[in-house]
Amino acid sequence: MDSKRLDQQIEFLVEIDRLKSIVRQTLLVDGSRQEDSAEHSWHLAILAVVLVEHSNAPVNLFRVLKMILVHDLVEIDAEDTYCYDEEANRNKEEREKKAADRIFNLLPPDQAVEFHSLWEEFECRQTADAIFAAALDRLQPLLINFRAGGVMWRKHRIRKEQVYLRNSPMEEGSPVLWEYAERMIKDAIEKGWIGE
Amino acid sequence: MDSKRLDQQIEFLVEIDRLKSIVRQTLLVDGSRQEDSAEHSWHLAILAVVLVEHSNAPVNLFRVLKMILVHDLVEIDAEDTYCYDEEANRNKEEREKKAADRIFNLLPPDQAVEFHSLWEEFECRQTADAIFAAALDRLQPLLINFRAGGVMWRKHRIRKEQVYLRNSPMEEGSPVLWEYAERMIKDAIEKGWIGE
Repeated sequence: MDSKRLDQQIEFLVEIDRLKSIVRQTLLVDGSRQEDSAEHSWHLAILAVVLVEHSNAPVNLFRVLKMILVHDLVEIDAEDTYCYDEEANRNKEEREKKAADRIFNLLPPDQAVEFHSLWEEFECRQTADAIFAAALDRLQPLLINFRAGGVMWRKHRIRKEQVYLRNSPMEEGSPVLWEYAERMIKDAIEKGWIGE
Repeated sequence: MDSKRLDQQIEFLVEIDRLKSIVRQTLLVDGSRQEDSAEHSWHLAILAVVLVEHSNAPVNLFRVLKMILVHDLVEIDAEDTYCYDEEANRNKEEREKKAADRIFNLLPPDQAVEFHSLWEEFECRQTADAIFAAALDRLQPLLINFRAGGVMWRKHRIRKEQVYLRNSPMEEGSPVLWEYAERMIKDAIEKGWIGE
Protein backbone atom coordinates (compact mmCIF):
# COMPACT_ATOMS: atom_id res chain seq x y z
CA MET A 1 0.00 0.00 0.00
CA ASP A 2 1.27 3.45 -1.02
CA SER A 3 0.82 5.29 2.27
CA LYS A 4 1.58 8.71 0.76
CA ARG A 5 -1.39 8.26 -1.58
CA LEU A 6 -3.74 7.42 1.29
CA ASP A 7 -2.36 10.33 3.34
CA GLN A 8 -3.14 12.73 0.48
CA GLN A 9 -6.65 11.34 0.14
CA ILE A 10 -7.27 11.72 3.88
CA GLU A 11 -5.92 15.29 3.96
CA PHE A 12 -8.29 16.22 1.13
CA LEU A 13 -11.22 14.58 2.95
CA VAL A 14 -10.41 16.48 6.14
CA GLU A 15 -10.00 19.78 4.27
CA ILE A 16 -13.40 19.55 2.57
CA ASP A 17 -15.09 19.33 5.98
CA ARG A 18 -14.99 23.13 5.72
CA LEU A 19 -17.76 23.12 3.10
CA LYS A 20 -20.12 22.54 6.04
CA SER A 21 -19.32 26.08 7.20
CA ILE A 22 -20.08 27.82 3.89
CA VAL A 23 -23.44 29.49 4.40
CA ARG A 24 -25.86 30.01 1.49
CA GLN A 25 -28.59 32.58 0.92
CA THR A 26 -31.31 29.95 1.29
CA LEU A 27 -33.26 29.09 4.41
CA LEU A 28 -34.15 25.55 5.38
CA VAL A 29 -37.79 24.80 4.52
CA ASP A 30 -38.73 25.23 8.20
CA GLY A 31 -37.14 28.70 8.16
CA SER A 32 -34.94 27.93 11.16
CA ARG A 33 -31.60 28.94 9.59
CA GLN A 34 -29.65 29.25 6.34
CA GLU A 35 -28.46 26.05 4.71
CA ASP A 36 -24.80 25.39 4.03
CA SER A 37 -23.14 24.17 0.85
CA ALA A 38 -22.56 20.60 2.07
CA GLU A 39 -26.27 20.21 2.85
CA HIS A 40 -27.14 21.80 -0.48
CA SER A 41 -24.86 19.36 -2.33
CA TRP A 42 -26.45 16.37 -0.60
CA HIS A 43 -29.97 17.64 -1.32
CA LEU A 44 -29.09 18.25 -4.97
CA ALA A 45 -27.71 14.71 -5.30
CA ILE A 46 -31.02 13.25 -4.12
CA LEU A 47 -32.89 15.57 -6.48
CA ALA A 48 -30.82 14.05 -9.28
CA VAL A 49 -31.68 10.47 -8.30
CA VAL A 50 -35.39 11.24 -7.97
CA LEU A 51 -35.86 13.58 -10.93
CA VAL A 52 -33.51 12.09 -13.55
CA GLU A 53 -36.45 10.89 -15.68
CA HIS A 54 -37.32 14.55 -16.35
CA SER A 55 -34.02 15.35 -18.02
CA ASN A 56 -34.48 16.62 -21.53
CA ALA A 57 -31.56 14.56 -22.88
CA PRO A 58 -30.40 11.12 -21.68
CA VAL A 59 -27.84 11.54 -18.90
CA ASN A 60 -25.40 9.33 -17.03
CA LEU A 61 -26.73 9.64 -13.48
CA PHE A 62 -23.49 8.30 -11.97
CA ARG A 63 -21.52 11.13 -13.58
CA VAL A 64 -24.22 13.67 -12.65
CA LEU A 65 -23.93 12.57 -9.01
CA LYS A 66 -20.14 12.88 -8.94
CA MET A 67 -20.39 16.31 -10.57
CA ILE A 68 -22.95 17.49 -8.02
CA LEU A 69 -20.97 16.17 -5.06
CA VAL A 70 -17.87 18.18 -6.03
CA HIS A 71 -19.46 21.22 -7.72
CA ASP A 72 -19.31 23.52 -4.68
CA LEU A 73 -15.95 22.49 -3.19
CA VAL A 74 -14.29 25.62 -4.59
CA GLU A 75 -16.44 27.67 -2.18
CA ILE A 76 -14.15 26.53 0.66
CA ASP A 77 -11.76 29.24 -0.54
CA ALA A 78 -14.02 31.35 -2.78
CA GLU A 79 -17.16 31.36 -0.55
CA ASP A 80 -20.70 31.06 -1.83
CA THR A 81 -21.47 33.83 -4.31
CA TYR A 82 -25.12 34.85 -4.04
CA CYS A 83 -26.57 34.46 -7.52
CA TYR A 84 -28.20 37.92 -7.33
CA ASP A 85 -25.05 39.74 -6.16
CA GLU A 86 -23.78 41.36 -9.40
CA GLU A 87 -20.64 42.82 -7.85
CA ALA A 88 -19.48 39.50 -6.34
CA ASN A 89 -20.28 37.62 -9.54
CA ARG A 90 -17.81 39.77 -11.50
CA ASN A 91 -14.70 38.12 -10.06
CA LYS A 92 -16.35 34.81 -9.15
CA GLU A 93 -14.69 32.88 -11.97
CA GLU A 94 -11.19 33.97 -11.06
CA ARG A 95 -11.68 33.28 -7.34
CA GLU A 96 -13.09 29.84 -8.02
CA LYS A 97 -10.38 28.85 -10.48
CA LYS A 98 -7.71 29.61 -7.91
CA ALA A 99 -9.64 27.66 -5.28
CA ALA A 100 -10.02 24.65 -7.58
CA ASP A 101 -6.26 24.57 -8.18
CA ARG A 102 -5.47 24.53 -4.49
CA ILE A 103 -8.20 22.19 -3.23
CA PHE A 104 -8.21 19.51 -5.94
CA ASN A 105 -4.41 19.36 -5.90
CA LEU A 106 -4.50 18.07 -2.33
CA LEU A 107 -5.54 14.76 -3.96
CA PRO A 108 -3.16 12.32 -5.68
CA PRO A 109 -2.57 13.59 -9.24
CA ASP A 110 -4.95 11.21 -11.07
CA GLN A 111 -7.83 12.06 -8.73
CA ALA A 112 -6.99 15.77 -8.83
CA VAL A 113 -7.42 15.63 -12.60
CA GLU A 114 -10.74 13.77 -12.33
CA PHE A 115 -12.22 16.16 -9.75
CA HIS A 116 -10.96 19.22 -11.61
CA SER A 117 -12.50 18.03 -14.83
CA LEU A 118 -15.86 17.19 -13.19
CA TRP A 119 -15.94 20.69 -11.73
CA GLU A 120 -15.01 22.33 -15.04
CA GLU A 121 -17.63 20.30 -16.88
CA PHE A 122 -20.27 21.48 -14.40
CA GLU A 123 -19.16 25.10 -14.77
CA CYS A 124 -19.14 25.02 -18.60
CA ARG A 125 -22.64 23.56 -18.92
CA GLN A 126 -21.99 22.08 -22.36
CA THR A 127 -22.66 18.36 -21.84
CA ALA A 128 -26.10 16.84 -21.17
CA ASP A 129 -24.91 15.71 -17.72
CA ALA A 130 -23.78 19.23 -16.77
CA ILE A 131 -26.89 20.89 -18.22
CA PHE A 132 -29.14 18.65 -16.14
CA ALA A 133 -27.01 19.13 -12.99
CA ALA A 134 -27.13 22.90 -13.47
CA ALA A 135 -30.93 22.79 -13.89
CA LEU A 136 -31.21 21.04 -10.51
CA ASP A 137 -28.80 23.57 -9.00
CA ARG A 138 -31.39 26.23 -9.90
CA LEU A 139 -34.46 24.23 -8.93
CA GLN A 140 -33.30 23.28 -5.43
CA PRO A 141 -32.91 26.81 -3.96
CA LEU A 142 -36.04 27.99 -5.80
CA LEU A 143 -38.06 25.13 -4.32
CA ILE A 144 -36.88 25.52 -0.75
CA ASN A 145 -37.04 29.33 -0.91
CA PHE A 146 -40.62 29.04 -2.08
CA ARG A 147 -41.57 26.50 0.59
CA ALA A 148 -39.89 28.64 3.28
CA GLY A 149 -42.20 31.54 2.41
CA GLY A 150 -39.85 33.46 0.11
CA VAL A 151 -38.09 35.12 3.05
CA MET A 152 -34.73 35.47 1.28
CA TRP A 153 -36.29 36.96 -1.88
CA ARG A 154 -38.09 39.51 0.26
CA LYS A 155 -35.01 40.24 2.39
CA HIS A 156 -32.87 40.95 -0.69
CA ARG A 157 -35.76 42.65 -2.60
CA ILE A 158 -35.33 40.31 -5.56
CA ARG A 159 -37.28 41.25 -8.70
CA LYS A 160 -39.06 39.12 -11.28
CA GLU A 161 -36.56 39.74 -14.08
CA GLN A 162 -33.65 38.65 -11.88
CA VAL A 163 -35.41 35.40 -11.04
CA TYR A 164 -36.22 34.70 -14.70
CA LEU A 165 -32.69 35.51 -15.83
CA ARG A 166 -31.23 33.19 -13.22
CA ASN A 167 -33.68 30.33 -13.57
CA SER A 168 -34.89 30.15 -17.15
CA PRO A 169 -31.77 28.20 -18.30
CA MET A 170 -33.40 25.36 -16.35
CA GLU A 171 -35.59 24.82 -19.40
CA GLU A 172 -32.67 23.53 -21.44
CA GLY A 173 -32.07 20.76 -18.90
CA SER A 174 -35.70 19.95 -18.25
CA PRO A 175 -38.79 21.63 -19.73
CA VAL A 176 -40.94 19.68 -17.25
CA LEU A 177 -39.05 21.00 -14.22
CA TRP A 178 -38.95 24.50 -15.67
CA GLU A 179 -42.73 24.44 -16.11
CA TYR A 180 -43.05 23.43 -12.46
CA ALA A 181 -40.57 26.14 -11.42
CA GLU A 182 -42.35 28.80 -13.44
CA ARG A 183 -45.60 28.05 -11.61
CA MET A 184 -43.79 28.64 -8.30
CA ILE A 185 -42.27 31.90 -9.57
CA LYS A 186 -45.67 33.20 -10.75
CA ASP A 187 -47.21 32.23 -7.43
CA ALA A 188 -44.39 33.98 -5.53
CA ILE A 189 -44.90 37.14 -7.59
CA GLU A 190 -48.64 37.04 -6.88
CA LYS A 191 -47.92 36.68 -3.15
CA GLY A 192 -45.58 39.68 -3.30
CA TRP A 193 -42.50 37.62 -2.32
CA ILE A 194 -40.78 38.52 -5.61
CA GLY A 195 -41.07 42.12 -6.83
CA GLU A 196 -42.71 42.93 -10.18
CA MET B 1 -46.57 14.38 -18.09
CA ASP B 2 -48.10 12.68 -15.06
CA SER B 3 -48.36 15.65 -12.71
CA LYS B 4 -49.30 13.50 -9.70
CA ARG B 5 -45.98 11.66 -10.08
CA LEU B 6 -43.99 14.89 -10.13
CA ASP B 7 -45.99 16.24 -7.19
CA GLN B 8 -45.11 13.13 -5.15
CA GLN B 9 -41.44 13.47 -6.05
CA ILE B 10 -41.42 17.12 -5.03
CA GLU B 11 -43.19 16.45 -1.71
CA PHE B 12 -40.57 13.81 -0.90
CA LEU B 13 -37.76 16.22 -1.79
CA VAL B 14 -39.26 18.92 0.43
CA GLU B 15 -39.80 16.49 3.32
CA ILE B 16 -36.18 15.28 3.31
CA ASP B 17 -34.98 18.86 3.86
CA ARG B 18 -35.52 17.94 7.53
CA LEU B 19 -32.42 15.72 7.51
CA LYS B 20 -30.47 18.99 7.74
CA SER B 21 -31.84 19.42 11.26
CA ILE B 22 -30.84 16.00 12.58
CA VAL B 23 -27.81 16.64 14.77
CA ARG B 24 -25.09 13.99 15.19
CA GLN B 25 -22.64 13.34 18.02
CA THR B 26 -19.70 14.46 15.88
CA LEU B 27 -18.11 17.90 15.83
CA LEU B 28 -16.95 19.56 12.63
CA VAL B 29 -13.16 19.31 12.28
CA ASP B 30 -12.84 22.95 13.41
CA GLY B 31 -14.82 22.12 16.56
CA SER B 32 -17.33 24.91 15.94
CA ARG B 33 -20.49 22.82 16.21
CA GLN B 34 -21.96 19.32 15.74
CA GLU B 35 -22.50 18.13 12.19
CA ASP B 36 -25.92 17.14 10.90
CA SER B 37 -26.93 14.02 8.99
CA ALA B 38 -27.25 15.75 5.60
CA GLU B 39 -23.67 17.04 5.87
CA HIS B 40 -22.52 13.63 7.06
CA SER B 41 -24.19 11.94 4.05
CA TRP B 42 -22.51 14.34 1.62
CA HIS B 43 -19.11 13.85 3.28
CA LEU B 44 -19.54 10.08 3.18
CA ALA B 45 -20.40 10.19 -0.53
CA ILE B 46 -17.14 11.98 -1.29
CA LEU B 47 -15.24 9.52 0.89
CA ALA B 48 -16.69 6.78 -1.32
CA VAL B 49 -15.54 8.47 -4.54
CA VAL B 50 -12.02 9.10 -3.20
CA LEU B 51 -11.43 5.86 -1.29
CA VAL B 52 -13.17 3.26 -3.48
CA GLU B 53 -9.83 1.76 -4.56
CA HIS B 54 -9.31 0.60 -0.96
CA SER B 55 -12.41 -1.58 -0.89
CA ASN B 56 -11.60 -5.18 -0.12
CA ALA B 57 -14.03 -6.51 -2.75
CA PRO B 58 -14.91 -4.91 -6.11
CA VAL B 59 -17.90 -2.57 -5.65
CA ASN B 60 -20.29 -0.68 -7.88
CA LEU B 61 -19.54 2.92 -6.86
CA PHE B 62 -22.78 4.21 -8.40
CA ARG B 63 -24.83 1.93 -6.15
CA VAL B 64 -22.62 2.74 -3.16
CA LEU B 65 -23.30 6.44 -3.73
CA LYS B 66 -27.07 6.01 -3.95
CA MET B 67 -27.01 3.87 -0.81
CA ILE B 68 -25.00 6.46 1.10
CA LEU B 69 -27.23 9.34 -0.04
CA VAL B 70 -30.37 7.67 1.34
CA HIS B 71 -28.94 5.69 4.29
CA ASP B 72 -29.81 8.25 6.97
CA LEU B 73 -33.20 9.46 5.70
CA VAL B 74 -35.02 7.36 8.31
CA GLU B 75 -33.51 9.64 10.97
CA ILE B 76 -36.02 12.31 9.97
CA ASP B 77 -38.54 10.39 12.10
CA ALA B 78 -36.25 8.13 14.13
CA GLU B 79 -33.50 10.68 14.94
CA ASP B 80 -29.80 9.91 14.97
CA THR B 81 -29.02 7.10 17.42
CA TYR B 82 -25.60 7.64 19.00
CA CYS B 83 -23.62 4.49 18.31
CA TYR B 84 -22.47 4.30 21.94
CA ASP B 85 -25.96 4.74 23.45
CA GLU B 86 -26.93 1.14 24.35
CA GLU B 87 -30.43 2.02 25.56
CA ALA B 88 -31.38 3.89 22.38
CA ASN B 89 -29.88 1.19 20.17
CA ARG B 90 -32.27 -1.41 21.63
CA ASN B 91 -35.36 -0.11 19.77
CA LYS B 92 -33.47 1.56 16.89
CA GLU B 93 -34.45 -1.08 14.34
CA GLU B 94 -38.17 -0.79 15.04
CA ARG B 95 -38.14 3.02 14.99
CA GLU B 96 -36.20 3.12 11.72
CA LYS B 97 -38.41 0.55 10.01
CA LYS B 98 -41.50 2.62 10.74
CA ALA B 99 -39.73 5.76 9.52
CA ALA B 100 -38.65 4.08 6.28
CA ASP B 101 -42.23 3.03 5.57
CA ARG B 102 -43.55 6.55 5.96
CA ILE B 103 -40.77 8.52 4.28
CA PHE B 104 -40.02 6.34 1.25
CA ASN B 105 -43.75 5.93 0.55
CA LEU B 106 -44.01 9.64 -0.17
CA LEU B 107 -42.35 8.75 -3.50
CA PRO B 108 -44.13 7.19 -6.48
CA PRO B 109 -44.34 3.40 -5.85
CA ASP B 110 -41.46 2.31 -8.12
CA GLN B 111 -39.08 4.82 -6.52
CA ALA B 112 -40.35 3.99 -3.02
CA VAL B 113 -39.35 0.37 -3.67
CA GLU B 114 -35.91 1.36 -4.98
CA PHE B 115 -35.12 3.67 -2.03
CA HIS B 116 -36.46 1.19 0.49
CA SER B 117 -34.34 -1.59 -0.91
CA LEU B 118 -31.18 0.56 -1.01
CA TRP B 119 -31.74 1.42 2.64
CA GLU B 120 -32.36 -2.21 3.61
CA GLU B 121 -29.28 -3.33 1.74
CA PHE B 122 -27.20 -0.79 3.65
CA GLU B 123 -28.69 -1.89 6.97
CA CYS B 124 -28.16 -5.61 6.32
CA ARG B 125 -24.48 -5.27 5.33
CA GLN B 126 -24.44 -8.47 3.29
CA THR B 127 -23.38 -7.23 -0.16
CA ALA B 128 -19.92 -5.91 -1.06
CA ASP B 129 -21.45 -2.47 -1.82
CA ALA B 130 -23.13 -2.29 1.60
CA ILE B 131 -20.08 -3.60 3.47
CA PHE B 132 -17.89 -0.91 1.90
CA ALA B 133 -20.50 1.82 2.54
CA ALA B 134 -20.77 0.73 6.18
CA ALA B 135 -16.98 0.81 6.55
CA LEU B 136 -16.96 4.44 5.40
CA ASP B 137 -19.86 5.21 7.75
CA ARG B 138 -17.54 4.18 10.58
CA LEU B 139 -14.40 5.84 9.22
CA GLN B 140 -15.94 9.30 8.65
CA PRO B 141 -16.97 10.08 12.26
CA LEU B 142 -13.77 8.46 13.59
CA LEU B 143 -11.66 10.64 11.31
CA ILE B 144 -13.38 13.93 12.07
CA ASN B 145 -13.68 13.15 15.79
CA PHE B 146 -9.95 12.47 15.85
CA ARG B 147 -9.10 15.63 13.93
CA ALA B 148 -11.39 17.69 16.17
CA GLY B 149 -9.35 16.65 19.21
CA GLY B 150 -11.56 13.79 20.39
CA VAL B 151 -13.92 16.16 22.22
CA MET B 152 -17.01 13.96 21.80
CA TRP B 153 -15.20 10.80 22.99
CA ARG B 154 -14.04 12.67 26.07
CA LYS B 155 -17.47 14.24 26.67
CA HIS B 156 -19.22 10.86 26.57
CA ARG B 157 -16.31 9.06 28.36
CA ILE B 158 -16.01 6.50 25.58
CA ARG B 159 -13.77 3.52 26.29
CA LYS B 160 -11.38 1.58 24.08
CA GLU B 161 -13.51 -1.61 23.92
CA GLN B 162 -16.55 0.41 22.74
CA VAL B 163 -14.53 2.00 19.95
CA TYR B 164 -13.13 -1.37 18.83
CA LEU B 165 -16.53 -3.05 18.97
CA ARG B 166 -18.06 -0.27 16.87
CA ASN B 167 -15.25 0.18 14.37
CA SER B 168 -13.51 -3.16 13.84
CA PRO B 169 -16.18 -4.34 11.31
CA MET B 170 -14.50 -1.73 9.05
CA GLU B 171 -11.84 -4.35 8.38
CA GLU B 172 -14.26 -6.50 6.39
CA GLY B 173 -14.89 -3.61 3.97
CA SER B 174 -11.31 -2.39 3.81
CA PRO B 175 -8.28 -3.75 5.68
CA VAL B 176 -6.29 -0.73 4.44
CA LEU B 177 -8.73 1.79 5.93
CA TRP B 178 -9.06 -0.23 9.13
CA GLU B 179 -5.27 -0.20 9.53
CA TYR B 180 -5.36 3.60 9.15
CA ALA B 181 -8.29 3.84 11.60
CA GLU B 182 -6.58 1.63 14.16
CA ARG B 183 -3.55 3.93 14.16
CA MET B 184 -5.89 6.86 14.98
CA ILE B 185 -7.59 4.88 17.76
CA LYS B 186 -4.24 3.91 19.34
CA ASP B 187 -3.09 7.52 19.13
CA ALA B 188 -6.35 8.72 20.72
CA ILE B 189 -5.95 6.23 23.57
CA GLU B 190 -2.37 7.39 24.11
CA LYS B 191 -3.55 11.02 24.24
CA GLY B 192 -6.22 10.07 26.78
CA TRP B 193 -9.12 11.01 24.47
CA ILE B 194 -10.44 7.44 24.61
CA GLY B 195 -10.41 5.65 27.98
CA GLU B 196 -8.43 2.44 28.49
